[in-house]
Parts: sequence; C-alpha cells; structure tokens
Amino acid sequence: MAAYLLLVRKLTRSRWGCVVRGKNAAGSVSPSPDRPLHFSTRPAMEKQRRSPRESSDFRRKKRFDVLRNSCVLKPKTTEEVSKILSFCNDNRIAVCPQGGNTGLVGGSVPVFDEVVLSTSLMNQIYDINDTSGVLICQAGCILEVLDEALADHGLMMPLDLGAKGSCHVGGNVSTNAGGLRLLRYGNLHGSVLGVEAVKADGEVVDLLSTLKKDNTGFHLKHLFIGSEGALGIVTKVAVQCPAKPKAVNLAFLGLESFDMVLKTLKKAKQDLAEVLASCEMIDESTLSVCTENLKLRSPLPDYPFYMLVETHGSNNDHDQEKLNAFLEDVMSQGLVLDGTVTNEVSKMRTIWDLRERITEGFIHDGYVFKYDVSLPIENFYSLVPVMRERLANDDVVRVSGYGHLGDGNIHFQVSVREFSQDILKKIEPFVYEYTSKLRGSVSAEHGIGFRKPKYIHYSKSPESIQIMKQLKKMFDPNGILNPYKVLPK
Amino acid sequence: MAAYLLLVRKLTRSRWGCVVRGKNAAGSVSPSPDRPLHFSTRPAMEKQRRSPRESSDFRRKKRFDVLRNSCVLKPKTTEEVSKILSFCNDNRIAVCPQGGNTGLVGGSVPVFDEVVLSTSLMNQIYDINDTSGVLICQAGCILEVLDEALADHGLMMPLDLGAKGSCHVGGNVSTNAGGLRLLRYGNLHGSVLGVEAVKADGEVVDLLSTLKKDNTGFHLKHLFIGSEGALGIVTKVAVQCPAKPKAVNLAFLGLESFDMVLKTLKKAKQDLAEVLASCEMIDESTLSVCTENLKLRSPLPDYPFYMLVETHGSNNDHDQEKLNAFLEDVMSQGLVLDGTVTNEVSKMRTIWDLRERITEGFIHDGYVFKYDVSLPIENFYSLVPVMRERLANDDVVRVSGYGHLGDGNIHFQVSVREFSQDILKKIEPFVYEYTSKLRGSVSAEHGIGFRKPKYIHYSKSPESIQIMKQLKKMFDPNGILNPYKVLPK
Repeated sequence: MAAYLLLVRKLTRSRWGCVVRGKNAAGSVSPSPDRPLHFSTRPAMEKQRRSPRESSDFRRKKRFDVLRNSCVLKPKTTEEVSKILSFCNDNRIAVCPQGGNTGLVGGSVPVFDEVVLSTSLMNQIYDINDTSGVLICQAGCILEVLDEALADHGLMMPLDLGAKGSCHVGGNVSTNAGGLRLLRYGNLHGSVLGVEAVKADGEVVDLLSTLKKDNTGFHLKHLFIGSEGALGIVTKVAVQCPAKPKAVNLAFLGLESFDMVLKTLKKAKQDLAEVLASCEMIDESTLSVCTENLKLRSPLPDYPFYMLVETHGSNNDHDQEKLNAFLEDVMSQGLVLDGTVTNEVSKMRTIWDLRERITEGFIHDGYVFKYDVSLPIENFYSLVPVMRERLANDDVVRVSGYGHLGDGNIHFQVSVREFSQDILKKIEPFVYEYTSKLRGSVSAEHGIGFRKPKYIHYSKSPESIQIMKQLKKMFDPNGILNPYKVLPK
Repeated sequence: MAAYLLLVRKLTRSRWGCVVRGKNAAGSVSPSPDRPLHFSTRPAMEKQRRSPRESSDFRRKKRFDVLRNSCVLKPKTTEEVSKILSFCNDNRIAVCPQGGNTGLVGGSVPVFDEVVLSTSLMNQIYDINDTSGVLICQAGCILEVLDEALADHGLMMPLDLGAKGSCHVGGNVSTNAGGLRLLRYGNLHGSVLGVEAVKADGEVVDLLSTLKKDNTGFHLKHLFIGSEGALGIVTKVAVQCPAKPKAVNLAFLGLESFDMVLKTLKKAKQDLAEVLASCEMIDESTLSVCTENLKLRSPLPDYPFYMLVETHGSNNDHDQEKLNAFLEDVMSQGLVLDGTVTNEVSKMRTIWDLRERITEGFIHDGYVFKYDVSLPIENFYSLVPVMRERLANDDVVRVSGYGHLGDGNIHFQVSVREFSQDILKKIEPFVYEYTSKLRGSVSAEHGIGFRKPKYIHYSKSPESIQIMKQLKKMFDPNGILNPYKVLPK
C-alpha cells in the first residue's frame, strides 16, 4: 500500500501544475481558499470537447492507453482504494475511476491528468450461491468471466453487452449498463442487491446486502448505480443472477414498416410473454453496413425493417411451440413478411453478428455522428425520417436507426464521408431538442461522461440537476472524483 | 387551495402548542434559534413507544382514524401538495404523508399532531399504454383499482399485497412494498420507471419518466422509493406493468423438514424457471392459526412445513406440464410428502386464504410479538428453533414462522395469551442481534416507520446512517416531513 501512495506522491509532485487542487470540478465545487486553483484547465478541456472526432465518436478512442505522463493505480482491495482516495482527497488530487474502459462517453478516461484508479486487479469472486442465485464479487471482475463462472452453477448474469469480454462489473454498475437482456431480466437497479463503495474521503460505505428485501432506511445503493463514479467508487457488488436458460431460440424477421414493427412487438409480448428475452430492431440502412461494408450474409432478402426476437426458456418444446404460434400469428396478419428461426448456436451467432457488428460496420462509411436515445415507443423510430428530411440536401452516406426496441432505446446515427461542422449543426442540438420534447432521454444507456454534461438539461429538470449538484457536494466536497463529468458547470 | 391553507392555519393556530416548530425531527435537524422549540414532545412520544400493544402489534391500530384534534388535508393535485408543503415548511408545521394507511410500522400515522396530508383524492389514472405496458397515475390510486383498470389492457400491477383493496400506489412506492409477486416481477426499484415528488419546501421534482432506460445523471427517483415520505411526498408514478398471465396454477405441498423446503425451492427455480411466480412457506404451527383459530380447511393433513408454489404463464398446457414434472421430481426424491395442485379460482382462493389470513388468525391467540426479517436463505427458518429453545420454559402459545421463502423474507412471531414484559425482553433485542449477525434485515418489507428507528443500526452501518441523516438534512432542512420516523435520534 505504501508503494501506491508513494507512487501517487512522486508522480503528482513531479507534475504538480497538472494536479487538480480544489478545482471547480463538475461545476459543483468552489475552489478552496487555502488550496487555490493552480491553473485554468478550461482551454484544454474545451479543446478536447471541440475535437469533432472525440466529441462525436468516442469509440475511436474509447480505450485508455496508459500515457507516458499518466499515473495508473491498480489496488487489489477495498482498503487500498480507501487509502488512495483518502490521500487524494487530502491532497486535492483528482481521480478517474476506470473499469474495463469500454464506455462510450469518456466517463472512464482522464480529461487532464487525473490519477487513474483502475479496478483491473480487483477480480475476486467471493461467492456464488446455488440456492439464492446471488453472486458476490469485486468490482473488477470481467462480465464474461462472471458469466462463465456462473454457468457452472446453472446461472448467468442478468446483463449482456457487446463489451462483455473486457468490461468490469463495477463499471456496469457505476454506469447502470443496459444491453441485450434488459427486456427480460430488468435493469441493474432491480438486480443489484448490494454494493460496497468508497467515498471521495476514503470512507467505505458497506451496502453489500445479499437480500432481496431490505427496507431499513433510505435506499442508498442506488446512488452508486449509474452515477459514473462521481459519488464514490464501487468496490464490491452482490448481484441476483437468473437461471441460465436451457433453451434459446432466435427469430430474424423482415417487415414492411415501423407500424408493423410496433404491432409485432406487441404480439411478441403477448404470445411469447414469459420466454421473450430480447426484441431488437434494425432498419434496412443500418443492416447494409453489415452486408455491404462488412460483407456479412443476411439470411433474409432486403426489407425496410428487421427484428431479432430471442426467447429464453426452460423447455425447448414449449418455447418453440410459443414461437411458432407467434410467427403464424404475425405472418397470417401480414405484420411480418419473411422470417427465419433457429436454435443452432452457429446460426444464432451469424444473426447476432448482424446486430452486434453494426458499430464496426459504420466505421467504413467514414465519420459517424452517433446518438443513444430513449423515446416513447410510438416515437421510437420517428427521429430517423425527421432527420432524413432535415438532411435531404446534404452529402450524407446514411441516416439510420437500430436498437433495443423492447426497451424503447434507439441507437441513431448519421454517417458522412468526412466530418462536417455544417452537418453537425443541423443534427445538434436538434436531436436533443426533439428527444426532449417527447420526454425522451438524451442518453439511454451510455451515460453522460464528459461528452454530455452540457446536454443533461434536455432530459432532466433544473430542480433535478440542482439536487444532483447538492449530492455531489455532499459526497465529494472537494470534487476529486471523476471531475468535469456527469454534471454541467 | 386557499381553503386548504386556511384550514391549516386555523387548526394549527388554535392548538399552537402542538405544532412542531424547528423540532429535532428524525434526530437530524437542530432547533432553529429564531424558531424555538415550543414544547418537549419526547414524553408523549416515549409513551406511545412504550405502549406494548402499539409497539409490538401495529395491526391492531393500523388504521388512522381522523381524530377530533387532527387536521387532515386532502389535496387533489401536485400543485396543491406543493402549496401545502411550502406553507408548512415556512411555518415549521410537521406533516405526516398518508396513503391507504395500511402500513405496519406507523409510518403513515401522526405521532403527535402533525398535519396529515392524505393522498386519498389524488386518484387519477392518466394513461395505460398497451404497447409499452406503462401506467401513469396519481399517488392516491388504490392498488386493486389499478389492477382492475390494467386488466382491461391485458396487464397487471407488478406487486400484490394483502392490503391491495385499500393501499395507495404512492404508499407502495414510498415504502418500497414487496408482497407476493416479487419473486417473479422484481421490486419497485426495478419496475417504477418514474416518480413525481414534492420536497419539504414545496418544490416539485419531476422525475416522471416513462422510459426503461435513462442514464442522464444520478438516479434520483430511488431516493423517493422506500424513504417513507421522509425526503418528499410522491405525487405521481409511472410503473412498468407486466402482462396479466393467461394461466395461473397453484400447488400446495406438505414437507417433513426445512432442509426439504430448501431443496424444493431450488428445484422449483430450476424446473418452473420462467413461470414461477410465488414461493411461500408456512410452518405447521402457523398454519394451525388458520385451521384451529379460524376453522379454515386445509386440503392436506398435518405436516411440519407447507409450501405454496404458484405459476404464472401464457400457456396453461405448458405450465401444467412443467408443474407436473416438478412435482414428480420432488416427490420421487422424497422432498415433498404430499400435495395438491389446482387452477380453479375458488380452490386457489381457499389455499391462499391459508396464507393471507394468518395475521387475522394470530389475533385469536392473544397478544402477538411480530417481526418481519430477511435472512440469508440457508438461515431462513433458523430463528424459529433458536427462539423456541430460548422460550422453552415460558408460557407462550406458539413460536412460528411463515413468509416469502423465494425472497428470503420470513414473518416470525411469538404469540402469548397476554403481553409480557419478561417475554419481550427475551425476544428483543435478541431477534435483532441474531438477524444482524447473519447480515439479515430487521425490516424486510414493512419499513422503519416510528416503530423501528432505534433498531436500524442492526441492519445499517454507522456510515450509512450518517449519509441518511445528511440526505434528510439536504432534502428537508426543517425536518417537517414525517418527523420522529425512519432515522434514529
């Protein structure tokens, strides 16, 4: 432990001018009179924000590479995290918590020279309880590793993400990650039973309950779920894990219009009910980034819309019977024009690749303006035609949408051959204003990070933002935790 | 609106000595120097707390009758709630929020002469969305009324309680109510999509999202879920409602030991998986309060333990096939000795009466010491034999346990012919210490109210309680909202 602190001291002293001291971090903390602000970081920050490549497509730089000047600390225990934070808080050293660094809004990337506190060595699995289905582990466990460990117990994680091979469960919890199974297994506010977190001053807050019911006082753990490390660093989690399904079936459907997509969604909920696990939508334009740019093969010919409907169940005969009844239903009513169903792992993989490799496919278009919004279900797709009309006379490759239909969360993008400030101005802030008018969310599952603090007011009222600022001040009075992120100035 | 404020003014002025002014409410707010404490309420509060009938069996007085001296305000709109709270906050008048007043720990009952703010006239249903399954309504809607309204849309509420005929959804949310369906449909932190709440100063906090995914800033709504009206009054809610099951089946099983109960639970999770909706346990001693005291008929002869296993599904044939396979499985392995299965509504009602009328049955025993605790699943029943041994030489009618096995939540009780201080001393604080040692919860689903603030430390760390006190001060600096409750002095 002493080595860690020595390292912090050494690194921070050697480049003292870059250490945040009583900085007006996240817009909520005033400079401390006895610890003056040593430098103005604003120009550098603005520079980063203004860089179109970084501000509009974070995937290109999503991995945090250990820079020559960066200090990365890798504690193994909660106690070490506590000591690091206590030291940093006393010395007004800003800290950027980092899990697998797979976030898309820069939440896990240091903006200046915050000390990076990585959870990569905090990868202990403490317990998997077969009867209760409760997993207890450290925050740095990789999602896929947990899924594999749980499989031996007939269990699985309640969430599944494209980044599962490298994202950390502590990061999942801190960002309230959504993903592909949310429709069936709910969000992390429901399935995380407990967390242990360390506050900015190093105080360990033990909320590591493994109980499904615990109504003793205010429900504090939710303050650490989705607050992106700005209120504390999650060090341990207890998760309620569902049974691993014995049967998985996947249908890939072609549809004529979004109206048909909506009706099919409703039918899927009714007919598949308890076995419905995922309900994703891809429009024709999006699918072509996979078929044309990546040369992936689609099992269906061209249709304006596609749906992926996956079932998870305990009896394959029952699930297939339900799925067949659903398909007969939607095809006889003319809602679905074409489709294929499979439970073969390789064929399912081929279909899921058409969904999961979309981001990769878009890169071939050139530059991509990407948005992750929630909209009321009737308006799920409305942004796409509106924006197509708005950009009708501009040189864009495609305006398209895909995403978690069952959860009302669309990933919307405009791809162009090269970044264009004019096109950006036509998209923003319009896309946020449009979402806000429909009471949607300008960040459905990706969070705010340092990319979106200035857009948060489109989804949250001034009163809510004020409460958030008060909470930040209460939990982290010196503003050392993930500064410049989440909250607006 | 003016009439409301006039009423508050009139009533509070006419008995000025009883109005809390800058009271050290909930132990977190210091008396304001310019608004001195007009009287000491402590003796009266202690008196209430010391009354064994009230402190140990709140059901006997659970209904709040409008006392001659009480001021009950019944706003119809959020704006009216806001004006009332603003006035009360300015004048340091304490407020007790009240829904259906079915709570069991005194959270909705005024301790002294707080103004009661009842949500009984706030019963508008604004929207039920067939496609998304989202209900938006006012806080005063009765749970059963909502369930009936949702049934017309093929939906139902995600929670079901014995008190559904009178409890309000705002109260359910404010107390994070659990109930009989939690095993399947999750807790309210997962299914409540949004709330609108009014803070102590009258500020309306609009968090009434209808979105399943919204990661824009800290997740504030959870502060109002389960905080028992101490941080704000919930005025509207948006709830994600599941499909109403087309098929319901109920098995009532007799078992030899708790070990067999645990193994059967595990089997039920594996075999019934996605259709398992409830898994309740009743011990022999508890069942006899229904069969002996209430003369209800049990379909099974005497066994040491009973289980109720209910399935909810979309295809009755499938569900029955799963249920039959499960029953063959557990009976062939000797885990279950006897059982009956039905999907006839009247027969299911008869069986559920054996579970839901237990509280009523206990009243015939005399006086009942009742506890609502969560314990790790292996220790779910361990409190009962331990306490039986502890009270072996005392004159008790029965020491027994029943409850939500699938959720690890046991209702534990000791019934005696007449209240005995000696027996109380043998039960408390032992029952809390025992629960605490096993990292259980001393209030699984009933909350803290004014009965349990002094026991909260058995389930929450000093650091957590300190954070709760800071939150209380932040949200309600004058301590007017539900004072004397939830937090310890």
